[in-house]
Amino acid sequence: MLVNGKKYMTIWTDKHNKDVVCAINQNKLPFGFEIVKLKSSGDVIDAIKNMVVRGAPLIGAAGAYSVYLALLEAKRKYKGAFDLNEYLSEKCELITSARPTAVNLRWAVDLILEKVTKQKTLQGKIDAALKMAEKICDDDVRACRNIGMYGRDVIKKISAKKKDGVVNVLTHCNAGWLAVIDYGTALAPVYLAKEAGLKVHVWVEETRPRNQGARLTAWELEQNGIDYSIITDNAGGYVMQNGMVDMVITGSDRTTLTGDVCNKIGTYKTALAAYDNKIPFYASVPMSSFDLSIRDGVKEIPIEERSTDEIMYSEYYDGRDIKKGLITFKTAKIRNFGFDVTPAKYVTGIITEKGIIKPNERSIRKLFRNG
Amino acid sequence: MLVNGKKYMTIWTDKHNKDVVCAINQNKLPFGFEIVKLKSSGDVIDAIKNMVVRGAPLIGAAGAYSVYLALLEAKRKYKGAFDLNEYLSEKCELITSARPTAVNLRWAVDLILEKVTKQKTLQGKIDAALKMAEKICDDDVRACRNIGMYGRDVIKKISAKKKDGVVNVLTHCNAGWLAVIDYGTALAPVYLAKEAGLKVHVWVEETRPRNQGARLTAWELEQNGIDYSIITDNAGGYVMQNGMVDMVITGSDRTTLTGDVCNKIGTYKTALAAYDNKIPFYASVPMSSFDLSIRDGVKEIPIEERSTDEIMYSEYYDGRDIKKGLITFKTAKIRNFGFDVTPAKYVTGIITEKGIIKPNERSIRKLFRNG
Repeated sequence: MLVNGKKYMTIWTDKHNKDVVCAINQNKLPFGFEIVKLKSSGDVIDAIKNMVVRGAPLIGAAGAYSVYLALLEAKRKYKGAFDLNEYLSEKCELITSARPTAVNLRWAVDLILEKVTKQKTLQGKIDAALKMAEKICDDDVRACRNIGMYGRDVIKKISAKKKDGVVNVLTHCNAGWLAVIDYGTALAPVYLAKEAGLKVHVWVEETRPRNQGARLTAWELEQNGIDYSIITDNAGGYVMQNGMVDMVITGSDRTTLTGDVCNKIGTYKTALAAYDNKIPFYASVPMSSFDLSIRDGVKEIPIEERSTDEIMYSEYYDGRDIKKGLITFKTAKIRNFGFDVTPAKYVTGIITEKGIIKPNERSIRKLFRNG
Repeated sequence: MLVNGKKYMTIWTDKHNKDVVCAINQNKLPFGFEIVKLKSSGDVIDAIKNMVVRGAPLIGAAGAYSVYLALLEAKRKYKGAFDLNEYLSEKCELITSARPTAVNLRWAVDLILEKVTKQKTLQGKIDAALKMAEKICDDDVRACRNIGMYGRDVIKKISAKKKDGVVNVLTHCNAGWLAVIDYGTALAPVYLAKEAGLKVHVWVEETRPRNQGARLTAWELEQNGIDYSIITDNAGGYVMQNGMVDMVITGSDRTTLTGDVCNKIGTYKTALAAYDNKIPFYASVPMSSFDLSIRDGVKEIPIEERSTDEIMYSEYYDGRDIKKGLITFKTAKIRNFGFDVTPAKYVTGIITEKGIIKPNERSIRKLFRNG
């Protein structure tokens, strides 16, 4: 998508030097736009750990590039005989432990390792790794674009029924292109609607405690010429109740076999407000984000309790640096739950790269049988 | 209630000098505890304007004391003949325009003016004004304590059914003693439950954008030895969905003839989550906060759109001062809705000083007939 009028993806290899992986430093957004150059697998591991890159699909892609860079390092450093397999398995262990809960990270590293193992020469392995990392990115972009097309068709239908044609989409957190490689999941329908000449306005819930809505979603919409308004998470109910929202689209970190949607904390309240006002609630879910082993999302999905500092302090920009400001007294007792589960009954549809399906076991099983 | 182990009300006249009105500076909370001395009606007007005092009943009481101070000023300044009536009506105009939307402010000023007018001498007027200001405070304290007793009985019943006896109450914003003179509205049941030896834990939604939950509610609970946990507004649904909440109690800025509850933005989403999880949702509403002229809260109550700076910046404490930190990019588009309306169908009961009633026209009319 566009940044300052120029096309970017969230991660790529340098045009002039394929040995360098470039990524947008998401820690600096929206206050600064900085591209980091990752020259070793260690650089990538640090970038994952420090959340320079974030979002499950993007972390997966970064992990894949990290294996590629590890192989390049082997070529540079080890002239004599050494145990490449042992070296690689140690590196892969380091990479996947950078964010142990990120399912996509292990998946991507395993995938690339499989391809690399089949190659006999070091150069063959390097070429295979690069090819596979690029394929992981390309596949993700394609999946997101397809999600975008299916979602755009829903927007188009709503637009046709409206006097001014403007479709008001409400979203929570950031499931835009910054969380993936390009287009996004929840925001892909919005970007493709704009491509098709449709008029869209997005209500962006700020998404406490980390404010990914206010910081990332608003920024990427602004950069791509989409009309939007940031509101507090609290105000999501108000705008829905007052006829100012036509549909809700969010992402999902994990979706069960029965269509329960686990996503950033607050999604559940937002879904309830949509339901109460008969506003369709969609989750944009790439097939890789389904967990078919789980039937009851509320009971079975473990919810991460995160550092209370995220609530105790609010990140702010002082014109030079991003700092942490104390927003309540230091001895205050706080609990910080990271995700919640929206039961399938509140989900109108799940937008996947293969089409929009109903949130139930039959539809989800069918999706995977045909997939 | 207690602050550092000592009993306070939010506003009072100095024990040693009845010509001075004291109030807790709520702008400094929870980072500093400061008592301001208000020596003239102008001091009080500034305190209302700058939100040193806040909360409808407290603003009303402050307005009443301001009339009293205006009369004392007249005694000090004007030795000769002057038009006291004209002076008073000008002062009262200034006082009520300090926060034009605060219904209680005009109500209190009118009330005190009525009493003052009946007195012939200046000293008689001064004495009547002080007496009436004190009566407004006393009546408010009594109403809140009654609300507390009715609410406490609900807590007691829930406690009896629980194995560990601990009742988990969730609240939004600050409807504690800091918003009134003592006890609070939503929090009065919690304080009276503690008085009665019941065990209570309060989930405090932080309440963006102004964080009155995290800053004021958490602080007053901490000071009064009540167990609590601050959570994001987003997490309110999660804790309810996971069996961690027994009842919800919020305040209300305005309650309609039909039982619709207008309150701080986000209350509606919280009520929906309570309803979805079969958790009783109560609004604590002094009879002075009903607006019997309104039938449909969502359609008829005008909702204030406040400064976008409240969302653009987060107040933080740097160890010395409270400052404003930028939390997104400066050109971001923002809308800031201040209140929302929870339809009566999601309200289990309204706790008033005369008892707990159902949120419907019949019960509300009956309450006022008997009142």
